[in-house]
Amino acid sequence: MNKVILASASPRRKELLKQIGIEFEVCVSTCEEKITKTIPAEVVCELSAQKALDVWQKVKVDSKVAVSDATGQQNVADKQSPIVIGADTVVAYDGKILGKPADKEDAVRMLSMLSGNTHEVYTGVTFCYAESGTEKVHTFYERTAVTFYPMSWEEIVNYVASGDPMDKAGAYGIQGSFAAYVKGIEGDYNNVVGLPIGRLYQEIKELLDK
Amino acid sequence: MNKVILASASPRRKELLKQIGIEFEVCVSTCEEKITKTIPAEVVCELSAQKALDVWQKVKVDSKVAVSDATGQQNVADKQSPIVIGADTVVAYDGKILGKPADKEDAVRMLSMLSGNTHEVYTGVTFCYAESGTEKVHTFYERTAVTFYPMSWEEIVNYVASGDPMDKAGAYGIQGSFAAYVKGIEGDYNNVVGLPIGRLYQEIKELLDK
Repeated sequence: MNKVILASASPRRKELLKQIGIEFEVCVSTCEEKITKTIPAEVVCELSAQKALDVWQKVKVDSKVAVSDATGQQNVADKQSPIVIGADTVVAYDGKILGKPADKEDAVRMLSMLSGNTHEVYTGVTFCYAESGTEKVHTFYERTAVTFYPMSWEEIVNYVASGDPMDKAGAYGIQGSFAAYVKGIEGDYNNVVGLPIGRLYQEIKELLDK
Repeated sequence: MNKVILASASPRRKELLKQIGIEFEVCVSTCEEKITKTIPAEVVCELSAQKALDVWQKVKVDSKVAVSDATGQQNVADKQSPIVIGADTVVAYDGKILGKPADKEDAVRMLSMLSGNTHEVYTGVTFCYAESGTEKVHTFYERTAVTFYPMSWEEIVNYVASGDPMDKAGAYGIQGSFAAYVKGIEGDYNNVVGLPIGRLYQEIKELLDK
């Protein structure tokens, strides 16, 4: 198995990769995010690629050495090439993209907007790797629709006071106490947590086995 | 808050109730399950009611005493009445109900059937409580559709060898390593884990606040 490098500090993404048994190292991207797109699916693809490419630049030297040493049968991804995984998640509602809330007031504003409605969560994922000595970039995204039950003002304020929303796009974490307000989803649940782990596994398998 | 009693030994159901901050005690039902229905939604409602009623018979004496002592304003559920929660989950595919696998061969058979297809998960939930001194039974169910990616024979056999399927309806646990094979769902994710915690929270709130 090629070395997998996760270009994300998110504890939830680390947890999800571990959950399906993928061994990996973490190398956090330090590049500044530059958004040139406006459509949510394009924004997450763009940002996941920036993160993955930034880390790829740091680790690809090893990869080139490894590739020149390779003698065995080549898979699509060179067997010794690391695979860098970048990811980015946003929440989209009513044509607006919601990132992480700036402060508690912002979190209350976001949740008041999402309460009783259906919004969409997009996660973009980018793989950077070497194929026959050539650098490759492969990007995809998953979309999940999420419907909330109506929340009272008190429920919103209490949830924001818990601190849980502050590091999360759209100001909620589907995997915590907020589950009480989630009516249902359409798509991959883990995509809402921050990484579409089913699709990711299928894509990485294809990359290595083809 | 009324005392909540969960009539289930399932560690996943306990975890979900804890997750949304509901305090509860566990009192496991010991009744023999009697299935008189064939439609999945009716089967889970019937079994969840049997479990809840069995435990209710054991705890309702306390409830009667409490109710006769009550002097304050009554909610729908008497304030001192315990609320017993029973739950049952089945997987349904192609007109068949899949419970827990009998053995590893049975687990392989179930997963081979579900691989690459969409099936349904039903969880029935029953509340037993006292209202104005009268015993009440309230039952509801949630349905979630789950779609798997196609799995290879090797993937199925490896997953079964992990032991994870053996205590789970349909021979898989959506919350573990099996996430790699889940393409998406339609409905409540936690309903597949074993308890529709969003709906349950909304129903219990209505019971206590109305």
